[in-house]
Parts: sequence; C-alpha cells; structure tokens
Amino acid sequence: MTVELLNTGSELLLGQTLNTHARFIGRRLADCGLRIARQTTVPDGPEIGAALAEAMSRATVIIVTGGLGPTSDDITRDVAAALLGRSLHFEPDIFERIRERFARRGLTPPERVKVQAMVPDGAEILPNDHGTAPGLYLVDESRPGPPKRLYLLPGPPRELNPMFESHVLPRLRAMAGPPLPIRILRTIGIPESHLQDRIEGPLRSQFPDVEIGYCARPGEVDLRLIGRDAGLVARAEEFAARDLGDAVYGTGDDTLEQVVVRLASSAGLRLACAESCTGGHLADRLTGVPGASAVFLGAAVVYANEEKTRQLGVPPELIARHGAVSAEVAAAMAEGCLRRTGADHAIALTGVAGPGPGTPEKPAGLCFIAHASARGARVERLTLPPDRPAFKEAAAQVALDILRRALMLCARGAEKSC
Amino acid sequence: MTVELLNTGSELLLGQTLNTHARFIGRRLADCGLRIARQTTVPDGPEIGAALAEAMSRATVIIVTGGLGPTSDDITRDVAAALLGRSLHFEPDIFERIRERFARRGLTPPERVKVQAMVPDGAEILPNDHGTAPGLYLVDESRPGPPKRLYLLPGPPRELNPMFESHVLPRLRAMAGPPLPIRILRTIGIPESHLQDRIEGPLRSQFPDVEIGYCARPGEVDLRLIGRDAGLVARAEEFAARDLGDAVYGTGDDTLEQVVVRLASSAGLRLACAESCTGGHLADRLTGVPGASAVFLGAAVVYANEEKTRQLGVPPELIARHGAVSAEVAAAMAEGCLRRTGADHAIALTGVAGPGPGTPEKPAGLCFIAHASARGARVERLTLPPDRPAFKEAAAQVALDILRRALMLCARGAEKSC
Repeated sequence: MTVELLNTGSELLLGQTLNTHARFIGRRLADCGLRIARQTTVPDGPEIGAALAEAMSRATVIIVTGGLGPTSDDITRDVAAALLGRSLHFEPDIFERIRERFARRGLTPPERVKVQAMVPDGAEILPNDHGTAPGLYLVDESRPGPPKRLYLLPGPPRELNPMFESHVLPRLRAMAGPPLPIRILRTIGIPESHLQDRIEGPLRSQFPDVEIGYCARPGEVDLRLIGRDAGLVARAEEFAARDLGDAVYGTGDDTLEQVVVRLASSAGLRLACAESCTGGHLADRLTGVPGASAVFLGAAVVYANEEKTRQLGVPPELIARHGAVSAEVAAAMAEGCLRRTGADHAIALTGVAGPGPGTPEKPAGLCFIAHASARGARVERLTLPPDRPAFKEAAAQVALDILRRALMLCARGAEKSC
Repeated sequence: MTVELLNTGSELLLGQTLNTHARFIGRRLADCGLRIARQTTVPDGPEIGAALAEAMSRATVIIVTGGLGPTSDDITRDVAAALLGRSLHFEPDIFERIRERFARRGLTPPERVKVQAMVPDGAEILPNDHGTAPGLYLVDESRPGPPKRLYLLPGPPRELNPMFESHVLPRLRAMAGPPLPIRILRTIGIPESHLQDRIEGPLRSQFPDVEIGYCARPGEVDLRLIGRDAGLVARAEEFAARDLGDAVYGTGDDTLEQVVVRLASSAGLRLACAESCTGGHLADRLTGVPGASAVFLGAAVVYANEEKTRQLGVPPELIARHGAVSAEVAAAMAEGCLRRTGADHAIALTGVAGPGPGTPEKPAGLCFIAHASARGARVERLTLPPDRPAFKEAAAQVALDILRRALMLCARGAEKSC
C-alpha cells in the first residue's frame, strides 16, 4: 500500500497559504505506521488531472485536498470523475444538508453551492460536519493491478481534519499492516552535526537495523529512529536518551511548552511570565497546552516602559540608568512578576526584536531572559536572529528551556525551596 | 521559463515539520511575476533522484531544498551530481569558512562536516551566511532543448531565506519577463460562496480577461485577480473594492494586525488588551508587526481569576455572580484595561477555549469580546470552533476586526471622542 498526497490550490503555490494538510495527514498516517511516499501541489486547473493520473500510476491510495468548494476554480470532482470515466449526478440529500446549514445561520444557499451536491457515480460520500462540501471516496478497479483508492477531501483544515479522522483514517488503518515502529527524541542545546557525531557511531554499531534520521528546527533537533522491530527501536531510543541526558526534552510529538506544563503540574508549581520583546508569544505557547490553566497564572505583556513600572513595579530610575533592554531590568521584571502574581517560577524577557539595526550597544537580536523563584533571580544574555518572528520564536524557546531545567531541578529535589 | 520546487525531507512527509519553504519561495517568485508550476516533496533517499529527473523533464528551473547538511541522510548533492553525470570535488575555501564558523563558537568542526565542502564539478557556489552548507547552482546543457537550471539550497529556513533573496531571486528576476499583474483583496465577514455570488458576475461581465480566484482562511477570504494588463487588473480591483466596502480590510500581503497597527498609528491612538481565553495570542499577533511599539502599550494575560482582579480590577463578586466567561466580566476587563493602561482603545476576551465540552450553559467555543473606549464598552457574544488553536485564532481575528472597525470610525471622524 503506497500513499500519495495531492494538494490542489493556487494559493499554496503563490505562497499565500501554508500547507498544513501535509503536516496533519503525514502525522496521522505515521501514527498508523503509514508514510506519505510523495506529496505534490498543483494549481487549481487542468494540471490536477495530470498530477492525479501520475499519482495513480505510482500509488494505490491517493488523497486529494481542495477544489471541492462552490466557486468556479473548484474543479477537483469534475477532473477525478473524468479521469475515472464516471458521470456526475445530483444528490438531493447533500443539498438538503447544505440548505439546513445555511438556514441555521438565517441564510439561503446561493444557486452555485448546488455543485457541491454533484457526485461521481459509484462514489461513497464522506459527511462534512463542519462545512458544505462532502468528501468523496472512489475505488477504481477498471485497470490492471490492485484497485486504486481516491479520497477527495475539502480544502479548509477545519473541515478536512475531522473528516480525515472519522472517515479516512479508519479505512486506511484497517488496510495497513501493524504500525511501523518509529520513535522520536526531541533534543535542545546540541547542534545537529555534534548530535550526530556523538550518537550515530554508537547507535549504528549497537543497532545496525535501526534507521537514523535528524530534523533541525530553530533551537532544537529531533533524532528519529525507525525499524521493523518495536523492541529494538525502543532499546535504541533508551540507549540514545541515556547518552544525551537532559538535552532530551521529550519524545514523539512533545513540545517544549507541553513538557513545562507537565513538569509544573506534577510538582504543583505555578508559573507566570513578563514579556517585553516577545510580546505575548511565550504566554501564547504556554496557553496553547490544554490544562495550562492549572499551572499558568498569567502574563504581563509590557511593551511600553510605563507598563513595566505599572504592571511589574520596575523602578523608572532603573530603566533610565540601564535601558529597558538590560540584565537589571530583566531581573526586576522577573522579580516583580514573581512577587505580584505569587507564582513559584517567573520568567521575564526583554530585548531588541528587530527588524532594524538597534544601536551599537544594543543591537537587534540582543535579548535578556531572567528566571526568578524563591531562590532568587538569574539572568541570561543571548544573541538571537535579528528578525522579528525568528527572534520571538528563539527567545520563547530559550525561556521555556530555562523553565524546564529549573522545574527538573525541583523535581529531583535538588532545590529544597521548590 | 517553468519553475518547479522540490522539497526533500522525511520530516515533511512524517508531518513533523510544516513546509514553510513553499510559502516563502512561492511568495517571492510571485512578486517577480513567476509562479511555481508544481511543488513536490519526497523523503530523504533515492526518490530524490527520480523526482528530480521528472521535474527536469517538465521545467527549466528546478529549486531543490534540503539534504545539504552534514548528516548521513543528506544526499541531495550526490543525487544531483549523479543525475547530471558530474563528479564531486573538495573545495578547501568552503571548508575554511565552515572551520571559522565553528571557531567563532569555540568549537572544532567534526570530521563529517567535510562533506559540505564537496561540490559537483562546474557548480557555482552560493554562499551561506547563516550556516555551514553552501548552496549550489548547476546549469545542465547536456540534453536537447533549453538549459536546465538547478538550485540546490539548504533546508533550514534561516539559511535558505537570505540565500534565496541574495543569490537565487536576482538571477531568476533577470530571466523572467515583466511581473504578472496580480492583486489580492483581503476580506472579512462574508462567507466564500456569498462573496462569489456578489462579486463574480459583475466582475466577469466588466473584466472578462481577468482571472478570478478565491482563498478561504478562518474568518476571512481572499479575492485574487490576475491578468496580463496591469491597468485592467487595477481597475478590476478598484471595482471589487468599491462593491465590497468595509469587508475589504487590506490588499496583497496585508494582515489584519498590520492594518490595525497602521490605523492606530496614523490616528495617534494607543491600544491595549486583556486576554483570558486567547492567552497572549492577540498580543503576539499585534507585536509581530514591526512598529507596533508606537501604538501598543501592552497586555494583561489573565488566566487565573485572581489575576483578572489584580491586573484589571475586575470585582471578585462579579466573577462569582456571572462566571469568568460572561459579558459582564468581559466588559469589566476591557474597562479595567482601558483605565489602568491609559490606552484609547482596549479589547478584552474571555471564553471557553476547549478541548473538552465545557458546561451546558458555557460550552467550549463560547467567547465574549469587549471593546472599550472613551465612548464606553460594547460586548459581542460569539460561538467559535471548540478546538484550542482554532478557537484562539478565530477569537483574535474577531477582536482585531472589532478594533479595525472602531479605528476606521475614528478615522472618519464619526466619533468625536477619538
């Protein structure tokens, strides 16, 4: 069983939209031991037909996203029907569902949504609980070789994701063999080439049948272990985890913020943060974790200097003397945050996010991160990418890792005050 | 000139990483009037060769990303050299640069990074100012037809993006014809099918030579107009913008947060926000805009109820009586935020972000958004997707649109108090 993913949509090729489908579908398939052999994006238009025919010549399962909407550039169902030599017919039930959806919002469906009720003969309908266009499942047994299975899914992630979970994944899982053992160690603080230098030789000699892969992201590197035998992969993972120690912050899909929330939660500790240069990005990541409310009290996003004073009690003289971007102000922010919120651990960030060069003393990319707990405050000075989104991401990443290491120390009982 | 993009990397197909290259490269090419005809992702491994050969059979420019790193799964340069029948040779200058990069961090390069100094014969070297692996530019004139141009670029966006800007785009721009006129109107508040119903008939009859496309994202829809004649496309855009009125919040790459910062900036108004359910996401979006510091004072992220009282002065009795998720508390948060920060406009959000069902009276997805200015406070009650990331995104989107409309009213002088 070979799976290919075909994404349609000019907006993906014009750079207007990120292809989140590839990530979502790739991940859900990997969970069942399936891999996408190839992913292709083509614009809305006749190229869909050529790309679909090519995918059908290589794969047995083809998942197509997009082009099922009501507008004139939505032609996936016509192209697929033509390729399989099927006619389209009108399904009154689908149209009735669409009519009801519109009626719930007090609207009448425009004439053109009728196209969404057109179905290729022999197609199975995959209900859409979050939009108007249903998905379509087509099995083509007209050519030699194994049957070709086509899933045509709507483009909006809010519609596609639940449809994929409920109606596509169960069918694929039933057809797949046992899941392919794959383990991922998520590491932080070791550059990619050093990570390989340190771990690959020993891993290869002890576990020659385990496939090793790496994926570097800003501030972190994944080590990926894949094999045929689950026990072997688990032992290889254990071996690597022991070698890499605290640099491993999690496994699988863990994110740094999930690990921080989990550590704080199991230790019964409460967190708060004070953000200047990251402007809420750290709080956004922490509150993206379900259950964060049990440990996260809140954040003060203090962009203006007066807000640093008002919300955190940073003395204006301190800001005047050292500047808002300084180790002194970072420490005062973290201490003020700790004291005022009553949190057990507080993190504060101040820096020059860029773009723009900053000043010679305070160049763009300069960042101070302070951690405060009952044991006092400690400040780190960092030089980060001087580009606003990359800066915010990297700064939040380091802040989360500082919190993680502080919470691990607590968990190990090394800090009596925790 | 036909351009294809080939992304390599198992992590993209296993769903571990979002393909941000396709968006970045797609957008930068579109700015020069070029389009990616097809984008393909293949795993690290021999499929790179097959996919590259296929792309070369269709396109004249092939941009390949990834697989130039120092680890064992980085094989792009070998595959490309083999396909073009070139040998690889060692370039001491590249290795010297790599050695210097490591030395600046007090490190010695491991032996394996030497592979990054291996270059196919006849390749031009594209310097990497942000990492170790240089890019490679290869022109193949060995087969009939126009020359095939290959750009091999490193995978990490921080390395690829500046290399693409400095060394790839200028060459492509010189080869491309005049830019393809493309205009995008970004709209909010009109469902996609209604947008088409309203605008497509009139547009088609008045501007039959303009290609019309749509792209729906959560809470917004882009209307895309493409044609051969810039004046014609501009007139079509003007026609559509007039018809759609306030539903058009911007053009091109505008984001809602940029528009809000721009409006506040030109009116000299200062903004602040108070976030419970969005947990900093709104502040993160606003502070993602360069120049936000001129108008954005800060935010109170008040996850815990005590923080709502401490940071915003929301009376505990009010929370006890109506619940933290209520119109009353939202209004009190916005008013407290306005009063305490001295902002001209304040926005507050409280809701049930999910996952998890919430309660019958307060189901997941319920959200109250309050806007406060000198004219008083107004609260909107919304039902949003009960899924945490989608909820946060949708809530921030509505909050930004409320701010935008309030700021536009001020700009029109309809509100004397602004």
